[in-house]
Amino acid sequence: MIVLFSDFGVSGPYVGQMRTRILDEAPEVVVVDLMHDAPRCDPRSAAYLLAALVTHLPAGCVCVAVVDPGVGSDRPPLIVRADDRYFVGPGNGLFEILARRAHDMRAWRIDWRPENMADTFHGRDLFGPVAAKLARNEFPQASEIAWQSLATAWPDDLPEAIYLDSFGNVMSGLRASPLGDVARVAAGGRDLQRRRTFADVAPGEAFWYQNAIGLVEIAVNRGSAADVLGLKLGDPVTPVP
Amino acid sequence: MIVLFSDFGVSGPYVGQMRTRILDEAPEVVVVDLMHDAPRCDPRSAAYLLAALVTHLPAGCVCVAVVDPGVGSDRPPLIVRADDRYFVGPGNGLFEILARRAHDMRAWRIDWRPENMADTFHGRDLFGPVAAKLARNEFPQASEIAWQSLATAWPDDLPEAIYLDSFGNVMSGLRASPLGDVARVAAGGRDLQRRRTFADVAPGEAFWYQNAIGLVEIAVNRGSAADVLGLKLGDPVTPVP
Amino acid sequence: MIVLFSDFGVSGPYVGQMRTRILDEAPEVVVVDLMHDAPRCDPRSAAYLLAALVTHLPAGCVCVAVVDPGVGSDRPPLIVRADDRYFVGPGNGLFEILARRAHDMRAWRIDWRPENMADTFHGRDLFGPVAAKLARNEFPQASEIAWQSLATAWPDDLPEAIYLDSFGNVMSGLRASPLGDVARVAAGGRDLQRRRTFADVAPGEAFWYQNAIGLVEIAVNRGSAADVLGLKLGDPVTPVP
Repeated sequence: MIVLFSDFGVSGPYVGQMRTRILDEAPEVVVVDLMHDAPRCDPRSAAYLLAALVTHLPAGCVCVAVVDPGVGSDRPPLIVRADDRYFVGPGNGLFEILARRAHDMRAWRIDWRPENMADTFHGRDLFGPVAAKLARNEFPQASEIAWQSLATAWPDDLPEAIYLDSFGNVMSGLRASPLGDVARVAAGGRDLQRRRTFADVAPGEAFWYQNAIGLVEIAVNRGSAADVLGLKLGDPVTPVP
Repeated sequence: MIVLFSDFGVSGPYVGQMRTRILDEAPEVVVVDLMHDAPRCDPRSAAYLLAALVTHLPAGCVCVAVVDPGVGSDRPPLIVRADDRYFVGPGNGLFEILARRAHDMRAWRIDWRPENMADTFHGRDLFGPVAAKLARNEFPQASEIAWQSLATAWPDDLPEAIYLDSFGNVMSGLRASPLGDVARVAAGGRDLQRRRTFADVAPGEAFWYQNAIGLVEIAVNRGSAADVLGLKLGDPVTPVP
Repeated sequence: MIVLFSDFGVSGPYVGQMRTRILDEAPEVVVVDLMHDAPRCDPRSAAYLLAALVTHLPAGCVCVAVVDPGVGSDRPPLIVRADDRYFVGPGNGLFEILARRAHDMRAWRIDWRPENMADTFHGRDLFGPVAAKLARNEFPQASEIAWQSLATAWPDDLPEAIYLDSFGNVMSGLRASPLGDVARVAAGGRDLQRRRTFADVAPGEAFWYQNAIGLVEIAVNRGSAADVLGLKLGDPVTPVP
């Protein structure tokens, strides 16, 4: 299975072109769009979101992840193997958080190049075809590199809003499991109680909960937490001691 | 074939996670996104829309339908067999209208549970895997129930706006076939004439027609009926006697 | 492979119904959504966009293209073979530009009709099933016609904004290759320099570049060219002599 994660947006011809290229090379492979509205041009926020989503991807899958404002610059194109999954995309920190959480991690700079490569669309011309090769158990020409050479100073959990969904729910870069059962979380100037699910609170009430990918998420039952609490990407979401 | 119908939205990581889970279990099955902008948190409107769409689904298909504001509460998870199609989703009325219109109908409460189930994402963890099993001709552990135990008092046809599409066309919960060839329909404070298709009226003119799934739909040629007539979800759309 | 191109929008039940029909007829065929936010009800702009995208489609694929404001009128339903690819859709000019650029071109009026055909949804009922037949090497009943009978007076390159993507980049109907390496382009009241990629300019700076499908595209690094330059669909984008 090849899984696609990008900030290309759900409209436009970009996802379709990447899919066309992959399926032309590997028509027998299942290709799934995981999401295409990852935090735009923001590899740091996207890194925490991707790391949380990864835990639900099947073993053996290949994930193409493209949040790549530096496309065409000298950031290296990477293959990353984290435990039993492959990742293909730009070396700009996007794989940093999932790599730290893996037990077994290796990385390669992609040396293979297609016959034609647009300067602005490596997703279609480089990362997609490389993923197709990996899904077919071909390893393209690549040079192993030390992961440390790419390390960032980003924290292990990010106390910020990293994604707002179309319901107005606000995901943070914090994992919920370390916080215990009763912890409160501060966001939008308020202290929020933990609840299990939406049906546990009255309509209009704000709360936080462990979302389905393990992150601290701020929500309002039948409402938009982003609107009610005035939250936007990058705003602080912090555990209350 | 597995067909997906939800209010998850076309953006976000929700459809992708449900697809990933289904295709991990049943990689040989064709999975189609029917729509993911069903009336949000509104199982009643969604029930009329789904019932109209169902008539165009292939025999033998399995439809996962999730409009589920009560996820995590005690609404039962269901398998419904209506004629030659299976439906999987919440027992909150979503399948009520299609069930009434079926010749042969049975329903089961799903007893099977996955190893891990998020309180807020039964689409991914419960309904998706159950659909994968059904598509592979495995019937998961489930208890047959009397459909009447779940019945609502909703009418057979709903004289309201139930869906606004991105063109601004407004679908109602009324089937067109009982209305005859010449009936007028009132909506947005106006009486509208029936036309066959958009090309039959001048640009900017409002009319109603039998849409491609058999419903009374309000439209404006090369314009937005929602804007021109000021229509929103739940507004009355009523036959003029 | 069947590739879908339409102005149906990414939300709504239209793409899903067309896909369901195609995959019910040809479950073994790979179906890819190329894009569904083509210029709405604007076959002329869409014709230049489609012609540019076509060069990246695999040989042998079948493309269903539907931008069809005249659905239900007397515009002919077409099969077009341009070099080694088939196209299926309305005879309203949508295939005009790609046909002019093909070395080998033939066209047929589709005579085959399905048992039931909605007046307003030929994508689902006519074009989709015809594409499924072509993908299975069945040629439906059709009458060859002279392409000249459908010709438009549209120019070979269109000096206008034909598509705005979700980043705010503005595609024109001009191919970049004839313009040489140093040409400037005027758009939004400004003369813009050519650059290779986003990383070559400072954040906020406007430029033009040859995009990944060969068109002149106006962009702003980490910004929206549509906003910065006040561009909308149909605005002039012209080479500066």
